[in-house]
Amino acid sequence: MDLHILDHRLRVTSIAKKGLVDFTHPLIKLIFLRNRTRCKFFSLTETPENYTVVLDEEGFKELQPSEHLQVESSIWLPLNVVSNGNTSCSSQAVGVTKIAKSVIAPLAEQHVSVFMLSTYQTDFILVKEKDLSVVISTLEEEFNIFKEEGGESVPVHSQEVSNGLQKNGKEDIHPTVHPVLIPLNHFCVMSLDPDTLPAIATTLIDVLFYSSSHKDEGQSSSSESLDCIKFFSFSLIDGYISLVMDTEAQRRFPADLLFTSSSGELWRMVRIGGQPLGFDECGIVAQISQPLADSDISAYYISTFSFDHVLVSPYNFIVSNTDIAA
Amino acid sequence: MDLHILDHRLRVTSIAKKGLVDFTHPLIKLIFLRNRTRCKFFSLTETPENYTVVLDEEGFKELQPSEHLQVESSIWLPLNVVSNGNTSCSSQAVGVTKIAKSVIAPLAEQHVSVFMLSTYQTDFILVKEKDLSVVISTLEEEFNIFKEEGGESVPVHSQEVSNGLQKNGKEDIHPTVHPVLIPLNHFCVMSLDPDTLPAIATTLIDVLFYSSSHKDEGQSSSSESLDCIKFFSFSLIDGYISLVMDTEAQRRFPADLLFTSSSGELWRMVRIGGQPLGFDECGIVAQISQPLADSDISAYYISTFSFDHVLVSPYNFIVSNTDIAA
Repeated sequence: MDLHILDHRLRVTSIAKKGLVDFTHPLIKLIFLRNRTRCKFFSLTETPENYTVVLDEEGFKELQPSEHLQVESSIWLPLNVVSNGNTSCSSQAVGVTKIAKSVIAPLAEQHVSVFMLSTYQTDFILVKEKDLSVVISTLEEEFNIFKEEGGESVPVHSQEVSNGLQKNGKEDIHPTVHPVLIPLNHFCVMSLDPDTLPAIATTLIDVLFYSSSHKDEGQSSSSESLDCIKFFSFSLIDGYISLVMDTEAQRRFPADLLFTSSSGELWRMVRIGGQPLGFDECGIVAQISQPLADSDISAYYISTFSFDHVLVSPYNFIVSNTDIAA
Repeated sequence: MDLHILDHRLRVTSIAKKGLVDFTHPLIKLIFLRNRTRCKFFSLTETPENYTVVLDEEGFKELQPSEHLQVESSIWLPLNVVSNGNTSCSSQAVGVTKIAKSVIAPLAEQHVSVFMLSTYQTDFILVKEKDLSVVISTLEEEFNIFKEEGGESVPVHSQEVSNGLQKNGKEDIHPTVHPVLIPLNHFCVMSLDPDTLPAIATTLIDVLFYSSSHKDEGQSSSSESLDCIKFFSFSLIDGYISLVMDTEAQRRFPADLLFTSSSGELWRMVRIGGQPLGFDECGIVAQISQPLADSDISAYYISTFSFDHVLVSPYNFIVSNTDIAA
């Protein structure tokens, strides 16, 4: 299989809920006005805590510094696994499950932290730029690795990237067991023809920028929000749109424009982390995706600024050995 | 004829060009998300100087105080003339021309300043709330005057409003002659089914919130902008949408959704005022509309925070006795 290091240098940021008003102008530009921006990688995910915005440097320029904007200090590079058809892939599963053993587990063993972004189309594995040499040396046994540069894919090998391995691997990882939260909402993972994005613009704007303001006024929703949590994700990456929303939000959109896989599957969510996870701990994705891969269970994995989120089919939804956050 | 004092208490405000970013969130709500606001009277007009926003008190609540927001101190009430069919009206003209002699001239004689807002559907004459008793006593000879209150039209007479006339009329008015500017753009006055507003949302957002940012970066466009000036007006009043834009902006919208009068007329603009006109001087609208009425020439009249604007057919476009602003 091939592994592509995509030609995007990404920032991972967080906008506070009450600061969204200040960022409406740049965010609407990045979402709807493709002709006005050179941003090619944009992802916005609302969670109960904040808005996580992942975007390339062209997009990042649009965000003015603000007390409401937190920026993770690293430059992140997105990796993408491409099945080139030559390699037999026994798994029928979609999402992070396909890459759990080949990418996620080896990186975790080398103490490389990853930020996962599953979309309708594919799964992006974000790694810190400073970890790139370790990533390449770790994965080049399993993959043909290419670096995309100006539209071309250039093969890379570890010796070309740095002077040798910087593996700091210790084999005896004892990963932290994080508490998880399992909200009751059912989610769908959808896409949309970019040309029809204008047709859902007002609904999408309403959902993204105005739906929280009502409920948050009382600031008393934290305890009641355990049953269903706010989670809405929009991404526009290299021209492809992906949306993750619960069925309540889905009902607000015209049914004929958004599409999902033919089975129209719904997904349940497991949110990982009782306290914000940070960006240095590694092994979290591996810890979650490994048992899913063992059972060949499809799963989408979406990291945000504070927590990680896994979407799995309710038919596979057997939870064990987990602490439910109170 | 009937004159209705509409049930809206309006504020006239101005947003600085560079402050628009801060007001994107409330303005998009007021324009596109009718279910989220009780605002029933909203008008936004971009001129080279600023954005003039006229809106009722429900809408005004959405605008946070800011160094970029100027608010005229008065409460303004919109008047609307309704031809009830019983009175013969010899004029075929549309716009401010129809009300020049019956409303505008008498108010000017009584030193009542007005703020005009012509739309596709009708012409609103805004007067200050404190002038209401003078307005009623001045116009009740010519009109049956009704005050709309909670959906009902209640007849009013001057003695019911205040204890007598407060006319401070001096018959010998020597109005200031203001310089005018006549840009080269051609404008159209259009409307739109509110149900199709979502279909033009991204284009309208682009035109309103993102079209200036490119050109203004150099801050050197003031001298070259004499030929064509930026002027774009959107209003959503009691469910009716009106748009005034030049032909360059018009080309950006889908031709099948916006409609105009069957003749598809284009209009030329005369901008009145070399320095900002303020809100106390009276007689400006009268001075302009009187000669137009004498010749039965249709004209739309749109006041903004700084200047007044008249739209007339290019076929009637004979300019005389005017100073062209340099």
